[in-house]
Amino acid sequence: MELNGVPIDNTFAEGFPIWMSRVIITGVTREWALIAATEATGFATSAIGCPCEAGIEGYLSGDETPDGRPGVSILICASKKKVPEQVMERIAECVLTAATTSVFNGMPDAEEKFDIKIHFFGDKFESKVEVGGRQCWKIPIMEGDYVGEEVFGMVKGVAGGNFFVMADNQMTALMGAKAASDAIFEVRGAITSFAGGIVASGSKVGAKNYKFPIPATTNEQYCPTIREKVPDTKVPEGVKSIYEIVINGVDEASVKKAMAAGIKAAVMVPGVSFISAGNYEGKLGPFQFKLAELF
Amino acid sequence: MELNGVPIDNTFAEGFPIWMSRVIITGVTREWALIAATEATGFATSAIGCPCEAGIEGYLSGDETPDGRPGVSILICASKKKVPEQVMERIAECVLTAATTSVFNGMPDAEEKFDIKIHFFGDKFESKVEVGGRQCWKIPIMEGDYVGEEVFGMVKGVAGGNFFVMADNQMTALMGAKAASDAIFEVRGAITSFAGGIVASGSKVGAKNYKFPIPATTNEQYCPTIREKVPDTKVPEGVKSIYEIVINGVDEASVKKAMAAGIKAAVMVPGVSFISAGNYEGKLGPFQFKLAELF
Amino acid sequence: MELNGVPIDNTFAEGFPIWMSRVIITGVTREWALIAATEATGFATSAIGCPCEAGIEGYLSGDETPDGRPGVSILICASKKKVPEQVMERIAECVLTAATTSVFNGMPDAEEKFDIKIHFFGDKFESKVEVGGRQCWKIPIMEGDYVGEEVFGMVKGVAGGNFFVMADNQMTALMGAKAASDAIFEVRGAITSFAGGIVASGSKVGAKNYKFPIPATTNEQYCPTIREKVPDTKVPEGVKSIYEIVINGVDEASVKKAMAAGIKAAVMVPGVSFISAGNYEGKLGPFQFKLAELF
Amino acid sequence: MELNGVPIDNTFAEGFPIWMSRVIITGVTREWALIAATEATGFATSAIGCPCEAGIEGYLSGDETPDGRPGVSILICASKKKVPEQVMERIAECVLTAATTSVFNGMPDAEEKFDIKIHFFGDKFESKVEVGGRQCWKIPIMEGDYVGEEVFGMVKGVAGGNFFVMADNQMTALMGAKAASDAIFEVRGAITSFAGGIVASGSKVGAKNYKFPIPATTNEQYCPTIREKVPDTKVPEGVKSIYEIVINGVDEASVKKAMAAGIKAAVMVPGVSFISAGNYEGKLGPFQFKLAELF
Repeated sequence: MELNGVPIDNTFAEGFPIWMSRVIITGVTREWALIAATEATGFATSAIGCPCEAGIEGYLSGDETPDGRPGVSILICASKKKVPEQVMERIAECVLTAATTSVFNGMPDAEEKFDIKIHFFGDKFESKVEVGGRQCWKIPIMEGDYVGEEVFGMVKGVAGGNFFVMADNQMTALMGAKAASDAIFEVRGAITSFAGGIVASGSKVGAKNYKFPIPATTNEQYCPTIREKVPDTKVPEGVKSIYEIVINGVDEASVKKAMAAGIKAAVMVPGVSFISAGNYEGKLGPFQFKLAELF
Repeated sequence: MELNGVPIDNTFAEGFPIWMSRVIITGVTREWALIAATEATGFATSAIGCPCEAGIEGYLSGDETPDGRPGVSILICASKKKVPEQVMERIAECVLTAATTSVFNGMPDAEEKFDIKIHFFGDKFESKVEVGGRQCWKIPIMEGDYVGEEVFGMVKGVAGGNFFVMADNQMTALMGAKAASDAIFEVRGAITSFAGGIVASGSKVGAKNYKFPIPATTNEQYCPTIREKVPDTKVPEGVKSIYEIVINGVDEASVKKAMAAGIKAAVMVPGVSFISAGNYEGKLGPFQFKLAELF
Repeated sequence: MELNGVPIDNTFAEGFPIWMSRVIITGVTREWALIAATEATGFATSAIGCPCEAGIEGYLSGDETPDGRPGVSILICASKKKVPEQVMERIAECVLTAATTSVFNGMPDAEEKFDIKIHFFGDKFESKVEVGGRQCWKIPIMEGDYVGEEVFGMVKGVAGGNFFVMADNQMTALMGAKAASDAIFEVRGAITSFAGGIVASGSKVGAKNYKFPIPATTNEQYCPTIREKVPDTKVPEGVKSIYEIVINGVDEASVKKAMAAGIKAAVMVPGVSFISAGNYEGKLGPFQFKLAELF
Repeated sequence: MELNGVPIDNTFAEGFPIWMSRVIITGVTREWALIAATEATGFATSAIGCPCEAGIEGYLSGDETPDGRPGVSILICASKKKVPEQVMERIAECVLTAATTSVFNGMPDAEEKFDIKIHFFGDKFESKVEVGGRQCWKIPIMEGDYVGEEVFGMVKGVAGGNFFVMADNQMTALMGAKAASDAIFEVRGAITSFAGGIVASGSKVGAKNYKFPIPATTNEQYCPTIREKVPDTKVPEGVKSIYEIVINGVDEASVKKAMAAGIKAAVMVPGVSFISAGNYEGKLGPFQFKLAELF
């Protein structure tokens, strides 16, 4: 299969379940909501070494938020046990402390709910208040009053959606990946948790050549500079640089939509020469996103 | 004392020691270095609930970096034991995985050094390489080769530099705080770890009114909306909003310089009515930054 | 009438016809399309002193552009005679010369069309090419080939949509205006041509106190700092700062939608105290946008 | 000569005199100064079709501006007669109307001065005021009072500093040009007037193949896609994309410094394969900037 003349590999991305919660952060302007959202979703690229995986899902206009202010929607992904803890910590440390922000439950219809008890921060100066039909707490702080919800929904979503953008030089692969990441930003229900939405260094579990325990090492099969040294290399001939886009979504449909949008954008960048995806031959995850069926 | 007609409180900020390391992140353009630096310094506002305190110190031109590429300098602050761990994790998860980045030791002259052994990620495909006189490792990854240093210096710096920007309305206090935060960004040796460099909700240790253990609650003495309910309020009459700027610096001089730059900028914003600072009456920290002596 | 507790003046904005063309600029990423669009819409705040009025209407995803690349839509507004000239100049100088851009007719259904003959730049090295069903020219340039349309539509739209955001201090009025400008950016069919979408200095035609010819002077009726000196002042008591949002739209409905979105956003900013609008008592323009009927 | 392994052509850039004025725009924060500066320097890429050439020279901290607020410095370049007119128009339309801005003479020591009489806008409500030792006018406007200087200096500077960034693919050449443009932004005394600081389409005076009068057409000697059709092509073998960086500076030294900084940055981008420069064989301009002598 080809898209805009670029071959699309006959393969699939393999995904697996992950729990996630959506937090809506509003601010006096989008800029201030975004400042808080950026801090709250930092240090959250991969669950291997970060406390969670998180990213900005998209922007919300005042019509789309409970308090009528501009907002930023984020997704926080981890184990079922860790999602509440991470939502709590990231709101308490990064959003409650940020200028002009409020937070709202971005999954009000989710069956699974949890409560973050942030109102204790008020030391009994807090009070209940309803905003846009939501039960919130108003907590006196230095800037004035912080207002936000405490009960959040979470769903079992999908992690590991992915595809590779390849080219015969690094700058082209990078621009292809950037175009893809930008396009995915427009898709609701999906995030890319890595910096800039792009992964420059893929990993495999454990090591082949080091004998001591190590959680992850470079995935040499996808490393262009050692292509000649790796007998089972998966780097196509002529490819000199690969970036991976890794996607978490609230459901399979969102991941598919994000993958499709990203790939369509990447192949428009002149010089992008091949699109593939990573999987564990179906051994790891229950979700298979066949590239050929995305479009 | 007054500055641009704004009264400067006759008080001091109280600081205490904190260990910190400077990591220089370079990229193919500043934008890409900044993307990685932003991810690496996220979820790092306050050591109370985050794994560390971190922030972007400033931009570096190609003339100022070991590899001649544009860079972003970050500071990562924590206990002496946790700094190496956090530098390791944040580089491994947020920078090594980011597009086009390299990392370098930003404190080559520090006596205290540590080693982050990131080259094991190469699974023996890595090799040593010298860049700008620095001993680096070259690790094959998907985008090409990652190059970076592994040995970093750390110093015992100063946390808790701070001042308050006050006004009779929230938007004015916010713009004053923003102007301050922008000005501090230009000062080398200092960071503001909170989102946007601004703290909207100050805290006190423990609680007064809740009887169960809780690490921190709102600092009601600085809450304008409950000024009438708090007998020992420190909110000046007429003040309706307060933002705090919290500064960590590599030494006392950097914190002083950052405080001075920030306050000078804040008082230029029309409507900012009072500048003060927070302390524990000298009981907690060995450093006292008297506002009157900053200028 | 009140909105979020803020009084909305019982008045109307007065608009008048203006010709305008929509140019779609695409680029390899949105960033590069935006760089060109920003240059092309600069020096275009007011037809009084600028060659035209222009602004960025909004972003387009790859699904919304003829060539499948991300885009930025701009509107260029002037007299019927000047629109073709300004579209020509701004494309030739600011977009053709910019990196990775293409331009497309953003009003393919308009009855009124014009032709900008940009292909002569190719000095007979150019050729015709079809992109997304559009008849384009391909012109060899340094970066590779420039591709773009030459025939553009234009419509008689509406200029002069406006409202005032008022507060008892400047920073609050400014943040209210900024929130409004951000909200209007989301409305298709409308632009705000002034810097940042905000007007800080309103004007009246001619002068009252200077006797020599002068095209425009400050509108003293809306100047808070001389409120006491101007008998017919329109500054409400207590108001210390006013910003105006001026809107051009492709039709009356777009202007109304933009005004409504902007006002709804402005009144959410704490401290914004009054919303009004400017008119010439119905003497100048055929369009009257009553604030009370917008919602 | 080589730089970072990239051949630097044995040629020179040819420059010629141009008059220019520096305007310092300050704002309540850098963001607001930048918003005005961006509008004021738009539609100003090339004097061929724009009313002037203009660009942002750099950022100024509060310590570097007359009023102690953060600022943005711009250069406006044109004929000696047109500089005053363009400074007047761009300040009046784009800065006076923008939020929170002031303007100051950025060339107080220039022998050549001009006066823009902007205070007539005040319709006799204006008054004189001194700011930072500068004689300014205070004009009542809607947001409050506008304050700014009216007398500006101008100097005979240098236009036409330039170099070409070449690569075997477009994305690499683009990133090389972007790195160069970023680096030049840090050099005081120089601007790049084109969108993003980058020129994608070079031109020659007049036409070769069209017989009617036309001011400029594509410079086919530097067009990679028609390399085989142009006997006197200057496109090196293997080069598929070229971007030009065009620089105006206040003097020869500034242009040299900017060219050096830009070229040094460009050659760090992986894949950039050749650097050259454009000239008219010394027939046009009195300034020759030999690439080999820049470093």
